Amino acid sequence: MSGLTAGANGVYVIAVTPFSGDGSIDMKSVDRMVDFYLEAGATGLTALGMMGEAPKLTIEESQAVVRRIIARVSGRVPIVVGVSSPGFAQMHTLTKLVMDEGAAGVMIAPPSSLRTDDQIVSYFGQAAEFVGGVPWVLQDFPLATGVQISVSTISRIVADNPNCVCLKHEDWPGLDKIGALRDTEKLNRRIAILCGNGGIYLPEEMGRGADGAMTGFAYPEMMVSVVKHHSKGEMDRARDLFDAYLPLARFEQQPGLGLAVRKYVLAKRGVIAEPTLRRPGAPLSASTRQDIEVLVARQEHRLRELG
Amino acid sequence: MSGLTAGANGVYVIAVTPFSGDGSIDMKSVDRMVDFYLEAGATGLTALGMMGEAPKLTIEESQAVVRRIIARVSGRVPIVVGVSSPGFAQMHTLTKLVMDEGAAGVMIAPPSSLRTDDQIVSYFGQAAEFVGGVPWVLQDFPLATGVQISVSTISRIVADNPNCVCLKHEDWPGLDKIGALRDTEKLNRRIAILCGNGGIYLPEEMGRGADGAMTGFAYPEMMVSVVKHHSKGEMDRARDLFDAYLPLARFEQQPGLGLAVRKYVLAKRGVIAEPTLRRPGAPLSASTRQDIEVLVARQEHRLRELG
Amino acid sequence: MSGLTAGANGVYVIAVTPFSGDGSIDMKSVDRMVDFYLEAGATGLTALGMMGEAPKLTIEESQAVVRRIIARVSGRVPIVVGVSSPGFAQMHTLTKLVMDEGAAGVMIAPPSSLRTDDQIVSYFGQAAEFVGGVPWVLQDFPLATGVQISVSTISRIVADNPNCVCLKHEDWPGLDKIGALRDTEKLNRRIAILCGNGGIYLPEEMGRGADGAMTGFAYPEMMVSVVKHHSKGEMDRARDLFDAYLPLARFEQQPGLGLAVRKYVLAKRGVIAEPTLRRPGAPLSASTRQDIEVLVARQEHRLRELG
Amino acid sequence: MSGLTAGANGVYVIAVTPFSGDGSIDMKSVDRMVDFYLEAGATGLTALGMMGEAPKLTIEESQAVVRRIIARVSGRVPIVVGVSSPGFAQMHTLTKLVMDEGAAGVMIAPPSSLRTDDQIVSYFGQAAEFVGGVPWVLQDFPLATGVQISVSTISRIVADNPNCVCLKHEDWPGLDKIGALRDTEKLNRRIAILCGNGGIYLPEEMGRGADGAMTGFAYPEMMVSVVKHHSKGEMDRARDLFDAYLPLARFEQQPGLGLAVRKYVLAKRGVIAEPTLRRPGAPLSASTRQDIEVLVARQEHRLRELG
Repeated sequence: MSGLTAGANGVYVIAVTPFSGDGSIDMKSVDRMVDFYLEAGATGLTALGMMGEAPKLTIEESQAVVRRIIARVSGRVPIVVGVSSPGFAQMHTLTKLVMDEGAAGVMIAPPSSLRTDDQIVSYFGQAAEFVGGVPWVLQDFPLATGVQISVSTISRIVADNPNCVCLKHEDWPGLDKIGALRDTEKLNRRIAILCGNGGIYLPEEMGRGADGAMTGFAYPEMMVSVVKHHSKGEMDRARDLFDAYLPLARFEQQPGLGLAVRKYVLAKRGVIAEPTLRRPGAPLSASTRQDIEVLVARQEHRLRELG
Repeated sequence: MSGLTAGANGVYVIAVTPFSGDGSIDMKSVDRMVDFYLEAGATGLTALGMMGEAPKLTIEESQAVVRRIIARVSGRVPIVVGVSSPGFAQMHTLTKLVMDEGAAGVMIAPPSSLRTDDQIVSYFGQAAEFVGGVPWVLQDFPLATGVQISVSTISRIVADNPNCVCLKHEDWPGLDKIGALRDTEKLNRRIAILCGNGGIYLPEEMGRGADGAMTGFAYPEMMVSVVKHHSKGEMDRARDLFDAYLPLARFEQQPGLGLAVRKYVLAKRGVIAEPTLRRPGAPLSASTRQDIEVLVARQEHRLRELG
Repeated sequence: MSGLTAGANGVYVIAVTPFSGDGSIDMKSVDRMVDFYLEAGATGLTALGMMGEAPKLTIEESQAVVRRIIARVSGRVPIVVGVSSPGFAQMHTLTKLVMDEGAAGVMIAPPSSLRTDDQIVSYFGQAAEFVGGVPWVLQDFPLATGVQISVSTISRIVADNPNCVCLKHEDWPGLDKIGALRDTEKLNRRIAILCGNGGIYLPEEMGRGADGAMTGFAYPEMMVSVVKHHSKGEMDRARDLFDAYLPLARFEQQPGLGLAVRKYVLAKRGVIAEPTLRRPGAPLSASTRQDIEVLVARQEHRLRELG
Repeated sequence: MSGLTAGANGVYVIAVTPFSGDGSIDMKSVDRMVDFYLEAGATGLTALGMMGEAPKLTIEESQAVVRRIIARVSGRVPIVVGVSSPGFAQMHTLTKLVMDEGAAGVMIAPPSSLRTDDQIVSYFGQAAEFVGGVPWVLQDFPLATGVQISVSTISRIVADNPNCVCLKHEDWPGLDKIGALRDTEKLNRRIAILCGNGGIYLPEEMGRGADGAMTGFAYPEMMVSVVKHHSKGEMDRARDLFDAYLPLARFEQQPGLGLAVRKYVLAKRGVIAEPTLRRPGAPLSASTRQDIEVLVARQEHRLRELG
């Protein structure tokens, strides 16, 4: 697989990490999940993201998961791997491991201690050195990291680091930020902008100039459809489909709970064998499972109406 | 108006504070807004909440706004007033002012410095003394305050303070928390639970035992409908209506931007004269206004389909 | 009194607000405290700072305290007043009140929600408009505010706002920052730099180019001595005195506890009648009082040795 | 070496990790540092603490450093190893590695996401399972972690986890907390309390019932002396020595800068070959080095005076 480029677009699904009931990695489910995502129209996959329970894996497990995903994908789409680490030595080690396995690039989120623009620019400059020439994705997710990265700061990072090829855009609110980044004066070159937040702003994000999504949702076909219809100028159809999925997408977007919802639905759909989260993740309450069942049934009904 | 009680239910709309283009308070719009909220079916109003731009008002202005709202409501529904302050002396002064004007109760959010359970319990115990026998609402909104209040902590606060009659529930995720609070073992007496978050989880919140909503949305009739149909057991109808409004509700729920969206729509609907926010609030971008127009048009279309 | 200027220097003592045992403001102690600070060599006073329990006062009380301080000072030194507020309307009102009373300038700390450089610059630009032509002090105290202000951001604020005449420097660590700000390339004009942190880095701060201190310590004569001896080039003498006071200064510098320590010592010295803090401030434990007594006794002994 | 017990006392020095100028680990300096700490009177060592640059090491490097320290100590004192990790899998792996090497116990700090008492109790309960029967130290350091752990929460953790044998006490202010924990009613059994904060409150901490220190300072002999003289009831002598070191200890205690100061002094004393920090650590400015030189010279002078 050649490397990730600034031309990335479509839907890079953030892959979950499937576990068996005993907490071990369920490699058969990894394979099925990869097939499912690609059949749904994913143009890329992202492994070991925050929603991939990355911090709960040992480095050996991280390597094994990435290896399995890459083997199953077999070059059909690029694989991005999250390598955010408490220190640069670990980031360097993990990056080398996964690039050797065949990843197309890595993704880096800032540590929560960063505050000033200069601190942020300096951090990514050093991180870029430690990942060493590998194409990388800048993860901009203030709700999770506590770090706010202004448009001018992104501009400096992009100018300083030729290997920064993509922004995983997850600022909230963030629509005007996409517009500002697409203003040709602001960045010295075009990078890919793939959006997060579980896809719940995807129609508007595409309208502002995003290239697609890099996020998770138990129905990735929603995101694929929105991007596809947007590219054909069929915005009403894109929004009709989006609206049908939105009640569940909104429910899945609850922080701290969303991954358990996603795994529950993926298991229900037969994609993964078990909805298990590794500890400290807790199972869903009966009431929450019931809420999901109602939402899924209504969603199926609405999709049939839409044809 | 008699005081707020633990029997509060329905929809307490968080009132915006209307400003003229020059930044002064627009009292005529206050009147029209009150009429609009009551015609939409509000069972109460909440003034000077976070979304009422309370910190941007002088104390004289706060008093004037509350006086005007109360005069216009003229006893038809209870008025709750946000009195969160950096110190207890200010909280005491503001509480006395608004209760003298005829408010039914006050609402208190915790300062962001609180961390441990004991600190939170102690803070509300002292606040209760300073508001002095007035019925009060505990505002539980971790996304804004940074303070997480566990079920057992709420239980201690309720047990300690007989005048704590209502929880403004805005934890996220927070559905299981409602369920836990409704578990008869957890609280020593029943208090009202009115939910926030712009109403975007209202069907599920009602299902868990909430008594209604205390939040804002430019279409308060959505919340009124959901509560009404839920009370009649017509959950499918409640959800059909909810789903029709959800694309816009989701858009309005963007933090930091949402109030400008709400005021834009309220001005568009003729409720307030101008969408102006007091500084440092910024006006909406042209792209955002266009997004709203699309969402409103689609919403109207969908509502006509639903009949 | 004419206004505060960029030539401010020496020791601006952060005044405590003395309360009687019943929590009311003790105006007689205000007078005695003013006399004490001026006799100790203060070149200015700062009222309603964070350590002045400002948020615990009503606006009427704030005005009364400032009026009393200014009356007692009677033009001998300039009075700076903290006007940090949750909103600009309140900041404007308080500023007008205290300048009418005869204050020389105001001090503004950033709200904890600010993160990016642009947000910080924009905030102070707007605040400067709202205080309206009054000389003001930029309070840079990340430990308390959570806001980190880089040298380049301070430079932008100083360039944008001619009335920003002084930095209350309280970053930690912050010595190199003073040096950077004194580098003639960094600021377009010289502003006063007065340092905080209870004076526990004062010798080093003076060495880096500070103009003095703006902070509190129950023995302000320590800070006056350090500044005086530094100005004469008697650094060893300055450090000898500093070292004698350091064990107590370090103890008083404990956050959250320090003000109670300071008031305890000021009461012990006969400066204020009671060590009372307004609630939620708690009284000192017996063990803490005992620690202070030991530290004061040893300090007196050491000072006698030094002569 | 047998395991760490609740009888731990004296001075557990937080070991730095020495690097060569090229950033590689300098094992010869590790040996010299171990000898130096033991000759200074350390009763234990703590490796891979926050001040040991632990997050900057790969897991192989972490293992190598711990192995070297343990080999050099050769059973003379117990070695505690910091194993705080983003996830339990990594914590488990690292714990197993270092216990196999011969460590006496591990130290665990809470992740910054924890807020409520229940969340904290639950986290340590799960962590205790993952470290699996190994004696462990609870690190209570709110300034660095953002997590505040109340006395009653510590009490619950100690009651739930028999292998929690020691508190690394670094709350600030925290003296009354030690007193509360020593109150026999509060804990169901006595655990060791070793204090942090660079030793700058050590005399008072010992007075409240601490068993010693677990922290770093370039002159560990200061802490050893304070503990020793305190145990003999020679508090004046303890304080005389403490006061002589305090000006430098205070300087070294600046967060973010302190480790560079410590390594500079350790290199100056010949303990480690180079003062190098791994990136992103920056070298000291010339002015800071000059400040240190003045402080060291004055300290030596004062110690000679004291005899």
